Amino acid sequence: MSHNRILTLLSDFGLSDVYIGVMKGVIAQVNPQLTVVDLTHQLPPQNVAAGRFSLMNAWSYFPNETVHVAVVDPGVGSHRRAIAVEFAGGFLVGPDNGLFSGVLDQQPARRAVELSNSQYWRTPATSHTFHGRDIFAPVGAHLASGAAFENLGPEIDPATLVQLAVPGVIQTESEITGVVQYVDQFGNLITNIPGRAVAGKGWAVRVHNLTIPSYETYSDSAPSQPLALIGSHDWVELAVNGGDAHFQLRLGWGDSVQVILNPGGNQ
Amino acid sequence: MSHNRILTLLSDFGLSDVYIGVMKGVIAQVNPQLTVVDLTHQLPPQNVAAGRFSLMNAWSYFPNETVHVAVVDPGVGSHRRAIAVEFAGGFLVGPDNGLFSGVLDQQPARRAVELSNSQYWRTPATSHTFHGRDIFAPVGAHLASGAAFENLGPEIDPATLVQLAVPGVIQTESEITGVVQYVDQFGNLITNIPGRAVAGKGWAVRVHNLTIPSYETYSDSAPSQPLALIGSHDWVELAVNGGDAHFQLRLGWGDSVQVILNPGGNQ
Amino acid sequence: MSHNRILTLLSDFGLSDVYIGVMKGVIAQVNPQLTVVDLTHQLPPQNVAAGRFSLMNAWSYFPNETVHVAVVDPGVGSHRRAIAVEFAGGFLVGPDNGLFSGVLDQQPARRAVELSNSQYWRTPATSHTFHGRDIFAPVGAHLASGAAFENLGPEIDPATLVQLAVPGVIQTESEITGVVQYVDQFGNLITNIPGRAVAGKGWAVRVHNLTIPSYETYSDSAPSQPLALIGSHDWVELAVNGGDAHFQLRLGWGDSVQVILNPGGNQ
Repeated sequence: MSHNRILTLLSDFGLSDVYIGVMKGVIAQVNPQLTVVDLTHQLPPQNVAAGRFSLMNAWSYFPNETVHVAVVDPGVGSHRRAIAVEFAGGFLVGPDNGLFSGVLDQQPARRAVELSNSQYWRTPATSHTFHGRDIFAPVGAHLASGAAFENLGPEIDPATLVQLAVPGVIQTESEITGVVQYVDQFGNLITNIPGRAVAGKGWAVRVHNLTIPSYETYSDSAPSQPLALIGSHDWVELAVNGGDAHFQLRLGWGDSVQVILNPGGNQ
Repeated sequence: MSHNRILTLLSDFGLSDVYIGVMKGVIAQVNPQLTVVDLTHQLPPQNVAAGRFSLMNAWSYFPNETVHVAVVDPGVGSHRRAIAVEFAGGFLVGPDNGLFSGVLDQQPARRAVELSNSQYWRTPATSHTFHGRDIFAPVGAHLASGAAFENLGPEIDPATLVQLAVPGVIQTESEITGVVQYVDQFGNLITNIPGRAVAGKGWAVRVHNLTIPSYETYSDSAPSQPLALIGSHDWVELAVNGGDAHFQLRLGWGDSVQVILNPGGNQ
Repeated sequence: MSHNRILTLLSDFGLSDVYIGVMKGVIAQVNPQLTVVDLTHQLPPQNVAAGRFSLMNAWSYFPNETVHVAVVDPGVGSHRRAIAVEFAGGFLVGPDNGLFSGVLDQQPARRAVELSNSQYWRTPATSHTFHGRDIFAPVGAHLASGAAFENLGPEIDPATLVQLAVPGVIQTESEITGVVQYVDQFGNLITNIPGRAVAGKGWAVRVHNLTIPSYETYSDSAPSQPLALIGSHDWVELAVNGGDAHFQLRLGWGDSVQVILNPGGNQ
């Protein structure tokens, strides 16, 4: 085969069992030359929203034509479709359950297929419980090795792909209201308010009865003090310098967050 | 060297310290071109049975001639032998403590050697406490790079390799009795009853006073309900849809499990 | 580019979020052929001393010219310098906060530069909060691919690099006093007393009112008994056979440890 694209893996399988190792064995059977990169395998179990967020914030850092294989798959064995999607950044392979809808909000799907051509699956057997090993890993490895996208299965209309609903952002002249869309392992609270909505302005965040000032970087605030900043993924983020904002602010997944613009009046 | 076989690593070293990174440095000193795949490094500490189970369920997904280096080694520094084994799937390198006996129950050893030829060890020094770094990793890297198996040390009789005793499965016309041989990180209980013993039949599992129905896949049962199924590694498995069977059924490592065949009578 | 050196990554980012995956994407954009090895990403958050210790004990197991990218960076976004250092073992890339001072205690810096040439940084944007992704990973990838060290930025005097103070070891004819400089994930206590100070002698360790005998290997002592030994990294270490010395001896980071030489008198 003529290509050696990068292949990434994302899942909620954890690293204690051999599931991920086994997927890499299956990939090596297709093409031992591929470079495989783990995005993370420690997503909260069956949390499709966390997978959607992680993928949406990772894909753009990879070379063009990278193949992203993602498996957060509470509906494995049911009637959810197995899909591959082509978009500007490369390819997405996994279950059709909204996992890719964050990426596709940023970059539209060029085309999509349902993975029904078993020629690209693992042989001999296909289980009802582990499509990551039996379908997604081998299909991803073939795609990364140069297999033609249209051969993976019949084309489907990208408009029919499952969307994961994330509450919208409401913006007035003086306020922006959004939600926490991700809590990272350090307790940083990442909202769905894009950094460009506040960049270059005076702003703060109101949580409960607290007004939290904004800074450029974590170390600009005093130790143990909460702060707001535009995080590295370009979203408005709440953090505590040297601490855990999730715990300290009693705020988590899906909770409402309010940005106040020009909190000190005209500047 | 003429080969670039895949080399896998399995251990109970965890990922918080640099032990695994250091083993990969030693491997890169032998051959920087090798593809190294982590099976898992988060086995329960010193749990040889967990290592045996993991390796037994992973090897067959890798290309032929893969070298599996495994280090769960409570007897390091004592008189246990350091060995390499050749079998149909490739090579096994590690301590002679039963870690490989699950693989070798499936595929007999073709030949075995004791690793006494220090030419293939790390130089300059060899510690008493870290044979993974000083012996197993470099020997595995040489083997994956094409070193001749018989040069690693004197041949030993495969019949003398340490066996890890796992209770047998007892089968009658109406019942099969086995044990839980592995608890995965999600609390799924994997028994030693092979899937082929129940495939195509009506069956259920009896635990305490509970009869647990069998399904094809996790999502076939109601949320929070226990179910029995043939898991992805082809063993009879107990799970809870969206929950933790280990916790909910109060059942763990080595506990007895009873399969009832044709629980509803003739079908 | 003419080189494909090994690149290692060390951080306190954990593996639950996509931060490390994203750094590997940035590296692959510079050079998809590089071999990337994780030392560990589970250092205690913002613990520069743990990073210093880990790097100091890992670098020597890698091939010459390896590039070590290390990010434990509580001062990101402040005025701490971003640096690269050339030494006998290869190259060090990261923040100038003492992270490299353990390596440089063993092997002096040959030359050092401040990373101010943005031509080697990630384009388009550079964040205030994630220099690992935007500066250290791409600079490391360029260096591993053969970029000239002197092009990364202006030369700085190695004598000006930040040192991390670790208490010294005090040695008399009958005693050696040091401190615990690292607690590993199993609770083993690794001191700053080098193994060569006790090798070949009779010795024990006194902790609180306890005299702990020395052995060659973990399994030489009885189960659950504390023991002292020269660990795999060649430091005097306290462990408990099958147990957790940190918990059992109530001893941790920075606590004092006393080695008694010839505890049984003349031998």
